[in-house]
Amino acid sequence: MTSTNPSLYFDDLEVGQQFKTHTHQIDEKQIVAFASQFDPQPFHLDAEAAKGSFFGALVASGWHTAAISMRLLVDSGFPIAGGVIGAGGEITWPRPTLPGDTLHIEGEVVELRPLRSRPDRGIVVVRNATMNQRGEPVQVLVTKLVVPRRTTASPEASNA
Amino acid sequence: MTSTNPSLYFDDLEVGQQFKTHTHQIDEKQIVAFASQFDPQPFHLDAEAAKGSFFGALVASGWHTAAISMRLLVDSGFPIAGGVIGAGGEITWPRPTLPGDTLHIEGEVVELRPLRSRPDRGIVVVRNATMNQRGEPVQVLVTKLVVPRRTTASPEASNA
Repeated sequence: MTSTNPSLYFDDLEVGQQFKTHTHQIDEKQIVAFASQFDPQPFHLDAEAAKGSFFGALVASGWHTAAISMRLLVDSGFPIAGGVIGAGGEITWPRPTLPGDTLHIEGEVVELRPLRSRPDRGIVVVRNATMNQRGEPVQVLVTKLVVPRRTTASPEASNA
Repeated sequence: MTSTNPSLYFDDLEVGQQFKTHTHQIDEKQIVAFASQFDPQPFHLDAEAAKGSFFGALVASGWHTAAISMRLLVDSGFPIAGGVIGAGGEITWPRPTLPGDTLHIEGEVVELRPLRSRPDRGIVVVRNATMNQRGEPVQVLVTKLVVPRRTTASPEASNA
């Protein structure tokens, strides 16, 4: 998926570095399919039933927004060497994802943490805002990615 | 799904209150199906290709673990009045979910925050540990749920 971009190592990244993914349009069918499997609540399953709910309309499960965001990142965002491997993070959903929304991610590197215990990798903290077509964030994920270092093969580095 | 349990309101909950969900067994087919749609990386798609990866074996996407955890919660964990509605939280994956793992959630209420601006609801902070059959956590999610209050209809409460 990211074969057109060179792979990024820890050493290639800088705090403040930004990136943007492709887009994905979500529709009612996708929302209901995901919810049927993983979050079967009326406001994710049925437009009529959703009217009387907290949201007042059919909305996507937050976990569906999270899953689509991962797909955008893997496909087009951030070609990390060895893959996009997250150790976790902080997730918020400032507003719901609605049928017809077109989502993309605007990402930024916010911290680089070398690991003393593991000189072959580092932790890269990335802030990924999943935006809708109105420029509003539907999800903000500040996530810790495990990223390999280029210096692994260097004897100087492994003795450091 | 939760029709056998009475619905829980903010006022019914206490810090320290614990609950446990049913179980879900994951297999390679489910892992590959989820990953094909949302996290198409070799270590989630193909057992052979996964051998040379960070994980050394086929593992589930963290977002798949999160989605299964939501399903367990909705089906059997915590029958919140109005639904399980999360505003976000902090998620970690201490170890991967493997094919054949049987997962369940052990949850605990860690904080109750009434909302001055919205006397009809409160924020309930819940710590949900998704455990495998070896008693090891594969995910810990500390999440903020929006929970309605019983006191909405009371004139005394809304004047307070």
